[in-house]
Amino acid sequence: MLDKNYLLPVDALRLILNSIHRNYPSDERLKIEECYGRIIALDVISTEDLPAFYRSTVDGYALNSTDTFGATDTLPTYFIVENEVTMGDVPAFKLKKGEAAKIPTGGMLPAGADAVVMLEHANAVSDNMVEVLRPAAPNENVIQKGEDITRGEIVLTKGHRLRAQDIGALAGLGITEIKVFKKPVVSIISTGDEIVPANSSLHLGQVRDINSFTLEGLINEHGGRSLKKGIFRDEYETIRNVIEESLHDSDMVLIIGGTSAGTKDMTADIINDIGRNYTEKSGLLFHGLLLKPGKPMIGGVVKNIPILGLPGHPVAMVTCFDLFIMPLMERLSGVILKGERFLKVVRAKMAKNIASAAGREDHIRVCLEEREGELSALPILGKSGLINTLVKADGIVVIPPGKLGLDSGEEVTVRLF
Amino acid sequence: MLDKNYLLPVDALRLILNSIHRNYPSDERLKIEECYGRIIALDVISTEDLPAFYRSTVDGYALNSTDTFGATDTLPTYFIVENEVTMGDVPAFKLKKGEAAKIPTGGMLPAGADAVVMLEHANAVSDNMVEVLRPAAPNENVIQKGEDITRGEIVLTKGHRLRAQDIGALAGLGITEIKVFKKPVVSIISTGDEIVPANSSLHLGQVRDINSFTLEGLINEHGGRSLKKGIFRDEYETIRNVIEESLHDSDMVLIIGGTSAGTKDMTADIINDIGRNYTEKSGLLFHGLLLKPGKPMIGGVVKNIPILGLPGHPVAMVTCFDLFIMPLMERLSGVILKGERFLKVVRAKMAKNIASAAGREDHIRVCLEEREGELSALPILGKSGLINTLVKADGIVVIPPGKLGLDSGEEVTVRLF
Repeated sequence: MLDKNYLLPVDALRLILNSIHRNYPSDERLKIEECYGRIIALDVISTEDLPAFYRSTVDGYALNSTDTFGATDTLPTYFIVENEVTMGDVPAFKLKKGEAAKIPTGGMLPAGADAVVMLEHANAVSDNMVEVLRPAAPNENVIQKGEDITRGEIVLTKGHRLRAQDIGALAGLGITEIKVFKKPVVSIISTGDEIVPANSSLHLGQVRDINSFTLEGLINEHGGRSLKKGIFRDEYETIRNVIEESLHDSDMVLIIGGTSAGTKDMTADIINDIGRNYTEKSGLLFHGLLLKPGKPMIGGVVKNIPILGLPGHPVAMVTCFDLFIMPLMERLSGVILKGERFLKVVRAKMAKNIASAAGREDHIRVCLEEREGELSALPILGKSGLINTLVKADGIVVIPPGKLGLDSGEEVTVRLF
Repeated sequence: MLDKNYLLPVDALRLILNSIHRNYPSDERLKIEECYGRIIALDVISTEDLPAFYRSTVDGYALNSTDTFGATDTLPTYFIVENEVTMGDVPAFKLKKGEAAKIPTGGMLPAGADAVVMLEHANAVSDNMVEVLRPAAPNENVIQKGEDITRGEIVLTKGHRLRAQDIGALAGLGITEIKVFKKPVVSIISTGDEIVPANSSLHLGQVRDINSFTLEGLINEHGGRSLKKGIFRDEYETIRNVIEESLHDSDMVLIIGGTSAGTKDMTADIINDIGRNYTEKSGLLFHGLLLKPGKPMIGGVVKNIPILGLPGHPVAMVTCFDLFIMPLMERLSGVILKGERFLKVVRAKMAKNIASAAGREDHIRVCLEEREGELSALPILGKSGLINTLVKADGIVVIPPGKLGLDSGEEVTVRLF
């Protein structure tokens, strides 16, 4: 049964994104060693040339390329070698016409040299003479001054996610501290009178808190900072108080549980009630999605802060993470994506038919198996309340709303956990 | 020029893997919140049923399914409703024939009930009576006792990498501490008389340490623990001492620089010299690869500990990380992979022809662009000594040894950074 008031996930996400107007997040200054994976908060413009000198890329002989003109195996050119470049030092000599100097990889070219001939292309014929067997081009086997990074060049742009090599480049420029955006803080509020902490022994009728642990891992893995608020009873004042508190210390607020149509469903009301206190457009944006699992999800915005009510079923909650929390954290992180968001995916063939209702987006858990050299995706059936179906799964296949299902043998993209 | 003594990367890696014989790594006991991404060091067998009781998956009416037999829209079955299940409690009542009880999602089924009819399929006709419009099947809308996880079931197996949902499942079982394998410790030894720390001002002829920062990020991102040993002069005793020290506190030893054919190339000698002190087969395994960039790489094993000499050119070093360090860390981590290692990849079309020498594996940096809805991979040319080519790149395309290059328009797999 599809409710016509329900939204497709993509439309619901757009509603939230259109309701938050945020400048860049605030930033913090950290040592570069602490900045792997973080979002840089300013453009980095090099104040230096890297390298600051002409540098050999091979072990060989530094010389002036014009002196090698016409050299061949049969008619080599001869060079006097009286000097050697030592690593890390400025050569104290200058090459004259017909002179070469031994140079190691990474060594600085002496004055008078503009190229390096590799050891393999030169023969020492005496203690202080080599023959060169082929001509060298200007700058051959040389990294020129500023060839890697030029003074004044924009090396990294604001909003870029810092990868290992980016941190390496910063080190190369002598930049050992940098401003990055603070991670978006995501509050996790667990609700439900039957939920007890993970370290509790259980009475019948109770279950331990699974979801806040799953959510914490996903949030931190994807660049956010989770803030577990605890487990709260399904009471209007209690939930309202913790949401209001969270609006002061978080960039996004997640309430797990309490979103289906039962007697205790008050998250939607609370979002609207809190929203009335603010002059900006605030309140509930949607309640119910054309999504399986995840149908009862609700979404709202107060004070430019997204507030999401997530279904308590573990699988539904993870589906809502993919579709809402991940892209919203991205928006709140200050990252500027070059193109689409890339996730870890593989292509596989469905091992079985799977049906889906038209007009609804279905997220199917699958297990991957290698069959005759091909990856096969076996759907894991089971209620969305079962955490074990997620433990057994390797990833998720999405059936878009326009499709009535997937055929056995059909090629699909599996988003890996 | 391809040297016939040089190995293909895949053969060189196999040489190392065949020379290390290790049991599982040692383990440590941590709180589950600290175990995201870690490798579990034992099988987890559930000592409980999850859930421990029959649980409703919807808001509705708990009843006995046999009482609903024959119910339709036009001929509903009527139930007396005098009780309500409250969340987290054991129902204090028992259903008799013809009785139903209101139950919220997650509530415990009362004695006498074996199914739940959704609110939408029942109408309250008075304060204490509902009509049910369709028959319910046994266990409909119910998670049975132990249906998620059964007592005695193996939930997670030794060697599994713990994902967010796995930590959630542990929490659900009341397991709040767990044994995981210690992360493999990887020592980073920077060598080169021209290399100075990142916070140094430069004299001409010197460059700052880029590689240990890049490597540190890659190691930690892929499940290892980096141990920066510092920058050492290219002197036999100095390098030998720090390698010997590292054999005592590391699971893998990386030496950056000093691996090409120059006067100061002693890493290979040191590995062999140290190896002679041990009765186990120890020493150098290869020197030189059919790989671009990364040709001068060396590999050895002492005391079952891989020792790799990495080229100092940043791009070559990253290539060696992908081909050697990542798979070796995996081996040392205790992880048991289900199938192949999955990396973050996308398919794209080459924007240009790229040539490659036969018999050599080439790793090409590429930049991704979206062109007419398709991803296009533009090769980034430039010497492997330039860190900026890695900063500008989005990923890597591998040209296997059997191929002479890639054609413009050819579809390729890009491994994303």
